[in-house]
Amino acid sequence: MKRTQEMTSVQPDWENFLPRPISDKIPFFSRDGRVYDCLFAQQFSRDLLAHLFRTADALREVTQKKGGADHVSSLLSDKRAMLYFAQPSTRTFMSFLNACHILGMKTSEIRDTSTSSEVKGETPEDTVRTFSSYVDMIIMRHPTPGFVEKTAWLMNRTGRPVPVVNGGSGKDQHPTQALLDTYTLYRSFNGELDNKHIVMVGDLKRGRTVRSLSYLMKNYKNISLSFVSPKEFRMEADILDFLKRHGIPYQETEDFAGVMRTADAIYMTRIQDEHDKAGESKGVDYSPFYFRQEHLKQIKKTCVILHPLPRRHEIEVSVDDDPRAVFWRQERNGMWARAALMAHIFGVDEKIA
Amino acid sequence: MKRTQEMTSVQPDWENFLPRPISDKIPFFSRDGRVYDCLFAQQFSRDLLAHLFRTADALREVTQKKGGADHVSSLLSDKRAMLYFAQPSTRTFMSFLNACHILGMKTSEIRDTSTSSEVKGETPEDTVRTFSSYVDMIIMRHPTPGFVEKTAWLMNRTGRPVPVVNGGSGKDQHPTQALLDTYTLYRSFNGELDNKHIVMVGDLKRGRTVRSLSYLMKNYKNISLSFVSPKEFRMEADILDFLKRHGIPYQETEDFAGVMRTADAIYMTRIQDEHDKAGESKGVDYSPFYFRQEHLKQIKKTCVILHPLPRRHEIEVSVDDDPRAVFWRQERNGMWARAALMAHIFGVDEKIA
Amino acid sequence: MKRTQEMTSVQPDWENFLPRPISDKIPFFSRDGRVYDCLFAQQFSRDLLAHLFRTADALREVTQKKGGADHVSSLLSDKRAMLYFAQPSTRTFMSFLNACHILGMKTSEIRDTSTSSEVKGETPEDTVRTFSSYVDMIIMRHPTPGFVEKTAWLMNRTGRPVPVVNGGSGKDQHPTQALLDTYTLYRSFNGELDNKHIVMVGDLKRGRTVRSLSYLMKNYKNISLSFVSPKEFRMEADILDFLKRHGIPYQETEDFAGVMRTADAIYMTRIQDEHDKAGESKGVDYSPFYFRQEHLKQIKKTCVILHPLPRRHEIEVSVDDDPRAVFWRQERNGMWARAALMAHIFGVDEKIA
Repeated sequence: MKRTQEMTSVQPDWENFLPRPISDKIPFFSRDGRVYDCLFAQQFSRDLLAHLFRTADALREVTQKKGGADHVSSLLSDKRAMLYFAQPSTRTFMSFLNACHILGMKTSEIRDTSTSSEVKGETPEDTVRTFSSYVDMIIMRHPTPGFVEKTAWLMNRTGRPVPVVNGGSGKDQHPTQALLDTYTLYRSFNGELDNKHIVMVGDLKRGRTVRSLSYLMKNYKNISLSFVSPKEFRMEADILDFLKRHGIPYQETEDFAGVMRTADAIYMTRIQDEHDKAGESKGVDYSPFYFRQEHLKQIKKTCVILHPLPRRHEIEVSVDDDPRAVFWRQERNGMWARAALMAHIFGVDEKIA
Repeated sequence: MKRTQEMTSVQPDWENFLPRPISDKIPFFSRDGRVYDCLFAQQFSRDLLAHLFRTADALREVTQKKGGADHVSSLLSDKRAMLYFAQPSTRTFMSFLNACHILGMKTSEIRDTSTSSEVKGETPEDTVRTFSSYVDMIIMRHPTPGFVEKTAWLMNRTGRPVPVVNGGSGKDQHPTQALLDTYTLYRSFNGELDNKHIVMVGDLKRGRTVRSLSYLMKNYKNISLSFVSPKEFRMEADILDFLKRHGIPYQETEDFAGVMRTADAIYMTRIQDEHDKAGESKGVDYSPFYFRQEHLKQIKKTCVILHPLPRRHEIEVSVDDDPRAVFWRQERNGMWARAALMAHIFGVDEKIA
Repeated sequence: MKRTQEMTSVQPDWENFLPRPISDKIPFFSRDGRVYDCLFAQQFSRDLLAHLFRTADALREVTQKKGGADHVSSLLSDKRAMLYFAQPSTRTFMSFLNACHILGMKTSEIRDTSTSSEVKGETPEDTVRTFSSYVDMIIMRHPTPGFVEKTAWLMNRTGRPVPVVNGGSGKDQHPTQALLDTYTLYRSFNGELDNKHIVMVGDLKRGRTVRSLSYLMKNYKNISLSFVSPKEFRMEADILDFLKRHGIPYQETEDFAGVMRTADAIYMTRIQDEHDKAGESKGVDYSPFYFRQEHLKQIKKTCVILHPLPRRHEIEVSVDDDPRAVFWRQERNGMWARAALMAHIFGVDEKIA
């Protein structure tokens, strides 16, 4: 695989590279017209999303029969992936791990970095480079913003780069979550993502998923967004500016009942109190931002309810039995969307059918 | 797979379901005449045991050659299992994991639940449902009595159930241990399990294995049982009642030397002091319930010595070299019996030979 | 596989076996002219090293194409390995794990022995024997000197032995590290290991790798060694005696700059302060034993720089970009060398090409 020519000739220092706009960086993390390192939700264009969704659909259909499953698990049987999760996340970890297994990749896991050589005084960069020696792909989750990107950047400068997939880095990016959320909308809407009213509810300030999803909405036509949140946790200004620039209408409100009637999709979120600095979540009444059994009568028959999970009380358990509650399918969609992405990165997506 | 019709139409609440007699529950956890969720030792009938033992024997024979091993590991190559072990148990864990690998299943592990989303305020039910999204089978060990059963019950109510195998739940059930113990007797007795005198020794009050094994003895004819224990740790009344109801003769004694001479099998157990409430084990002289080198001369030439392991001092290490000491084979039998069970659940047992 | 006849007839007790010279023990750990248990660097003769290096080279070449990789991963597809790492070592662990995956072996991991039955009062010997029941090979790292050897010795006395590979035992042996270091020299010197000047630098007293590598040098002709270290961490007398006995010339010096000009290979090491008894490392100025950017001009064009990693500051990061810095390749060589060793142990090395 060849990196885009202009970028290789430049090769700036990390300190000069980091602050560049994401749109400038994308070529550096692409090869042969494909995503090589998947780091930012911004790497997903409308066309690429459509392609990945078709690939994910093909994967689920083909693997329903044993012969198809065995075929798919032969596609990357020569590849070994390392899941480097320096931050606890069993959910994303399991989703990626099983996506690897669907494609036949062998997997190694690093989940507790305290057992690694970091304790012997090694730099994180050396640690990652060491582990990359053994594998063909790194799937990484890391608490430090920018660390996953830096890993990919470093790898690309070595004689033996391997693709890096971002499984969540700090508070900034979690691109495959955005991918699976959009894939869930795609499946819920029978492939038609234009002309929708999407309602996002809850802790929008600190929810990485609603931020990424808002970005991806620029790929679709005639989208309108409603942001329903307590005033303490309103969507941040950078996203609102982005929507204005791209001409995507949005409203901010605390009136959940008022906007849910016209929603095509309601994206519920948990209060992110793990990001509290001084217990500020405790002073907020979050209950107006719950989806309750009684709301099922008020939403459209075609409206779907999403949630990135885990949930606490923001969706009543009895709602789960309604066919419009798609958050459990959303979990499973994540595995298929991630498998599609990895098949794309390795260029075996055309061999699935 | 279709669940038995009567049960699906009922679908009682969990609170109403839980207290039902196990015999009433078994159909709910069965499909197409097969075990679907393996939760209770009571699910193993004489015929099913015989079938599973023949299957386990076939597995070990076929896999002795590489071609056979490769065939067997193709049987479930399209399946993914999750081992959810919320309680430490490397032994049972390893046994199940390698059983999965024998059948070609891909595996994911959750062993430290503190890294899971349970820390983010999710209910255990949501956590388990999430993880089930990615896999085709859950093998679960959990410290809370009834939790594994509840998981299976919940799964059966979702649109995408997966079979659940009990790897030990609280103090109540550990059905695959009973399966492997009986399989070890079957192999030790050349397939003839009727007409035996089984001696169980040690902490019978708190030993889950001796309780389950006693249950399973109802499947065989002309069995007699001897329970040898300190008076503090005698077999509990529910088991003794069960034996009376099924006309299985038993005796309780502290005289180990007296009963060992006529034993066909001696099942040794460790003192279960991890279940002590106030250090009560410390006041008990456990040494009369040890099997020592000198006892080898006193037991029958055909008598076998079992132990679920781990042991402390209740069997002298020098006994291991005697061919009648089968507890190391018992360990390995567990792996084969579990592989046979999983092959049965997925309906590939007929394809082994 | 048959063990060498003389040894099986002897079968001494462990206490009598342990103190024997390694050369006497090697037949006990060999079968059919092959290494069975890999425990000591002394098991690697010149011929065996050459064979393993050719095997490793074949593995990397064959696996470059998918068809070759799939062929290689079919060679041991019927085998299951257990990685029992009672001591943290993610690096060695990952290297072995991926080596297993290259050969198609299924793997189980025990990394945190606190979750094992050791907590239930089981002896380490019973624990290891239990886990061996499920697998076909044990790869073991253990902090207790001699424990890995004892495991192999015990296994060989059971009815179902499995080969044991030493992944590092206490301070005494780490044979596959010596193997990969020598393999790296082999590749760096285009297969010609005779007539070289090897410079070892740093904490030679406590560095297991430089000790093992010194041993292996006896397999090659006209080798000269330079030991560059602070006076507190000079190479120990047993190694110096060994070199004298085998007529291998060596010099000890603190003058790094003086010897690097004639070096064919420079083997850098980290200060091993985890072995400090009373903070003795803190009083040592280690900086004269650093390899710096400026040294690149002083060494031969063909000289290579090795390091077992992890490093701290003893090699400047800017050195990494020089083609003579081979320590990153050395990491990867480890995986291939270990795969070659395991292919040899199982007798599939001839089937690779």
